[in-house]
Amino acid sequence: MLHWLKNYQRTWLAGDIGSGVVVALMMIPQGMAYALLAGLPPVAGLYASILPAFAYALFGSSMVQSVGPMAITSLMTGTALASMAVAGSSIYILLTAELAFLAGVILIVSGIGRLGFLANFLSRPVMSGFTSGVALLIIGSQCAVLAGLSSKVALWEIVPRAHGPSVLMGLLSLLVLWMSQRWSAGLLGKLGLSLAAATILSRLIPVFVLLLNTLIMLSGAAWTVGIPVIGHVPSGLPDLDAGALLALKANFSSLVMPAALIAFIIFMSSQSAALTLAQKRKEHIDANRELLGLGVANVAAALSGGFPVTGSISRSAVNHVAGANSPLATLISAGLLATLLLLPGTWLAPLASIPLPVMAAMIITAVIGMIDLALIQVAWRYDRADAFALFATAAGVLFLGVERGVVIGVVLSLSILIGRTSRPHMAVIGRLPGTEHFRNVDRHAVETLANTLMLRVDAGIFFGNTAALISHIDQQLQNRSEVRHLVLVMSAVNFIDTSGLYALTELNASLSERGMQLHLCEVKGPVMDRLQGSPLIKQALTGKIFLSAGQAYTFLSNAT
Amino acid sequence: MLHWLKNYQRTWLAGDIGSGVVVALMMIPQGMAYALLAGLPPVAGLYASILPAFAYALFGSSMVQSVGPMAITSLMTGTALASMAVAGSSIYILLTAELAFLAGVILIVSGIGRLGFLANFLSRPVMSGFTSGVALLIIGSQCAVLAGLSSKVALWEIVPRAHGPSVLMGLLSLLVLWMSQRWSAGLLGKLGLSLAAATILSRLIPVFVLLLNTLIMLSGAAWTVGIPVIGHVPSGLPDLDAGALLALKANFSSLVMPAALIAFIIFMSSQSAALTLAQKRKEHIDANRELLGLGVANVAAALSGGFPVTGSISRSAVNHVAGANSPLATLISAGLLATLLLLPGTWLAPLASIPLPVMAAMIITAVIGMIDLALIQVAWRYDRADAFALFATAAGVLFLGVERGVVIGVVLSLSILIGRTSRPHMAVIGRLPGTEHFRNVDRHAVETLANTLMLRVDAGIFFGNTAALISHIDQQLQNRSEVRHLVLVMSAVNFIDTSGLYALTELNASLSERGMQLHLCEVKGPVMDRLQGSPLIKQALTGKIFLSAGQAYTFLSNAT
Repeated sequence: MLHWLKNYQRTWLAGDIGSGVVVALMMIPQGMAYALLAGLPPVAGLYASILPAFAYALFGSSMVQSVGPMAITSLMTGTALASMAVAGSSIYILLTAELAFLAGVILIVSGIGRLGFLANFLSRPVMSGFTSGVALLIIGSQCAVLAGLSSKVALWEIVPRAHGPSVLMGLLSLLVLWMSQRWSAGLLGKLGLSLAAATILSRLIPVFVLLLNTLIMLSGAAWTVGIPVIGHVPSGLPDLDAGALLALKANFSSLVMPAALIAFIIFMSSQSAALTLAQKRKEHIDANRELLGLGVANVAAALSGGFPVTGSISRSAVNHVAGANSPLATLISAGLLATLLLLPGTWLAPLASIPLPVMAAMIITAVIGMIDLALIQVAWRYDRADAFALFATAAGVLFLGVERGVVIGVVLSLSILIGRTSRPHMAVIGRLPGTEHFRNVDRHAVETLANTLMLRVDAGIFFGNTAALISHIDQQLQNRSEVRHLVLVMSAVNFIDTSGLYALTELNASLSERGMQLHLCEVKGPVMDRLQGSPLIKQALTGKIFLSAGQAYTFLSNAT
Repeated sequence: MLHWLKNYQRTWLAGDIGSGVVVALMMIPQGMAYALLAGLPPVAGLYASILPAFAYALFGSSMVQSVGPMAITSLMTGTALASMAVAGSSIYILLTAELAFLAGVILIVSGIGRLGFLANFLSRPVMSGFTSGVALLIIGSQCAVLAGLSSKVALWEIVPRAHGPSVLMGLLSLLVLWMSQRWSAGLLGKLGLSLAAATILSRLIPVFVLLLNTLIMLSGAAWTVGIPVIGHVPSGLPDLDAGALLALKANFSSLVMPAALIAFIIFMSSQSAALTLAQKRKEHIDANRELLGLGVANVAAALSGGFPVTGSISRSAVNHVAGANSPLATLISAGLLATLLLLPGTWLAPLASIPLPVMAAMIITAVIGMIDLALIQVAWRYDRADAFALFATAAGVLFLGVERGVVIGVVLSLSILIGRTSRPHMAVIGRLPGTEHFRNVDRHAVETLANTLMLRVDAGIFFGNTAALISHIDQQLQNRSEVRHLVLVMSAVNFIDTSGLYALTELNASLSERGMQLHLCEVKGPVMDRLQGSPLIKQALTGKIFLSAGQAYTFLSNAT
């Protein structure tokens, strides 16, 4: 905890202050936009960017991760609560806090339980399919906002009901944002700016666009009348109110499932951001510490009027590029946001005039970047099963909902894995004449014993491949009626689970019925330790356990 | 289809007829009991044992599998529909048919899609946990029936409300059945019967117990008044009515999920029965043909007044032991049941007096056998993770319901697999002096190059282990500042999925930034084919792809 503070070096300070200011500037519009996506008043997005960022700086392991609201988790929050309360109502606000609280507790418990390996549960194509599906959902809902309508308006109703001036302002902003996202960094580079400066400036363009359009709204031009704005942003820091949170505990049971899925996505998103940057910075990320850091950040969000938060790849990348050296940068950003909220109410009044269509344009530009077309193309060419999983997950998100999309993604990732590992590689082996080396009979001129079949199993033996293993053995034995000894060479078997243990036990029994013995050799230490503890193999095994294939070969060449 | 009929040998006939009669005798009480468990009139259990058995004989691949109602799928049917209609009502009966229809279609589609490998999705401990949980649920509900009450009566209300004579009859039957299950086969064996005869006779004891108690009821003894009976069993074959089934299609969407889970359990149960017997009979089971056979059987059940059916391990084992040689035995059983239903109604009248408490005793005895205490003990000693999964699945079934229990089981099976495979085994290797053999530097006296790190990866590279792979490589490189070449020896890499491809591409880029080259060697044929199709590795790879580790070693010993 706070290990970075102990080793803090004075030379880091300039970078941390600079990136702290830049990220704070990004956080103001992003936070408010994602709060709207979650069905909350914009100020909740600012709240969610303060205390959670402090909490993560204390407990997390990444040096430059920027923790706060993010598009995917905000949408998940909105859809999870849509049927429970009216968006924006006080009960709804409490429910989002509860959701963040539960997600935080789940993350903390997972961290303590060292479940960091859960980050390995989604393949990259499936994660990409999920992200793309969510991005399309968000774009769908924001198109209506861009046209000056409620996000609930269906796509086909937008055109007839669109509000002209909103469409104009929204589409123009979208165009500028989209073009600047694609070209501004390169353009600024050509103007002589350093890569870092160009990147930072281009990332701040949304702030300038928002500022410009807000000024237009404040100018009171006649044509801007009727363009929806975000409305009053109250000043002052959020109340820390644990009492109200616990009073709602009756809802916990119906929130557990969505909270678990949101927690999973919080972790997945944050890990992908943290790992990408850690590789660049040659730092180490501890998955279990990350779970803890994210969990505490979400509990902090729950206690301070926020909603589920996670590490944001876009803000963290800017933080890194802008020269952040330690979590102090994040603390400075959070401090600046807190200062903003402490300004007199009249100073914040202009924020109320931020036009919603421009916010929508900003969100659309942000999430379009989440659709990784290159990966879709690569997966399609490289591995059809992965491409199928990608499309199926995206389709699941779009047509069955975000939560089911996560479940579909996990199931597909794992199904493909099972499909790939359900046929273990096995080789019939023999001895290279005059040596103690054993090789595949199909590839080398080796000598074998007529009464013995030696099979090398090249995979751990577990529930997913026992059926294939047994049927492969039966097949090999079918044309070898003279075989009396089966030797399984276990040099590549890293584990045998309980299902594998049973399969071996049953194989032993069935061989015995057919007058054959089962032998094992080259069993790895940890595997042997377990087998010896089990009565099944030790007492029932008809054959012997040899140290090496060579010993088995010598012994059995003298056997009948 | 019907391959067995083409090769039918006259000598098989006696065995098929004998076992056909025995299994029919078992099917009558079992079918009716499981129909009650599913909330249906008893006759539905007989219907479900006729046409589905015929259908399976035509399409399935097992020679002795007995397809019909089974305890687990019956309970799942009952719980899935409990909230949709009143048990036993005509709409409820149609809903069960719809459920069987959907499960059948899902199974057929899975068979055509060759998804037979899905049977590998549950580890044996998890399947055992699931089965045990369901068995406990069934015992819980049948305790009330044994006491002469409705199965809906809660456990703690049984004692105050129990009906004395029912308890007497039920408990006595339970005692006899339980003792006979444990000791009768051995006892009959000691009396000189062959093992087969003793097994068959002991399996028919439930029929005798039921017969005896029905005679007691028919005797009209005063004390039996008030003991619930199964009631009128209508004669005649079921109507084949596809129209009514399709008229209800509005319910399909809410039935899809339960149907999919039931289909999964149908397949899992049937496979475990079929594989056990196939191993004994040296036959081959084709998982995809099984899916088809079970699917058609369930559609047949739906069309003929039945409910979800599957292969029953208890009946199939008796079929095998009683001498069945082909599916003709099943056809004979089904034919006998059909004949029974075609008898004049007055002949079937005595069936109405079968006492429910004895039925409950029969069900309890049957499902107690499904709780595999030995496996629990073995798993606990052998592998705590598996034991935990077993308990968690059983607890899931008991406290969250059967459907969630299946999902929990699948997730746990796969989680443990991911946990086990997420740390791939890797070895730094060097050359055995004077040879072309490469071995682990920790175990052998080998020579290495100062500028080169050779790493052998001993697992397929996939989403679950890329993080560990990369962090392991970074760790190895940390103390070797002189290394300029990383050679990944891929002799044991059977597949690289899209996530793995990206990990290698990113590794290549990050090594390049640090002034190092990435080389590959001994890439297997199928893996190489895929890599060559992908632009990433082929165009971006900074190093070379060598055929053998020896070539890489020689080349790099001359490199800088």
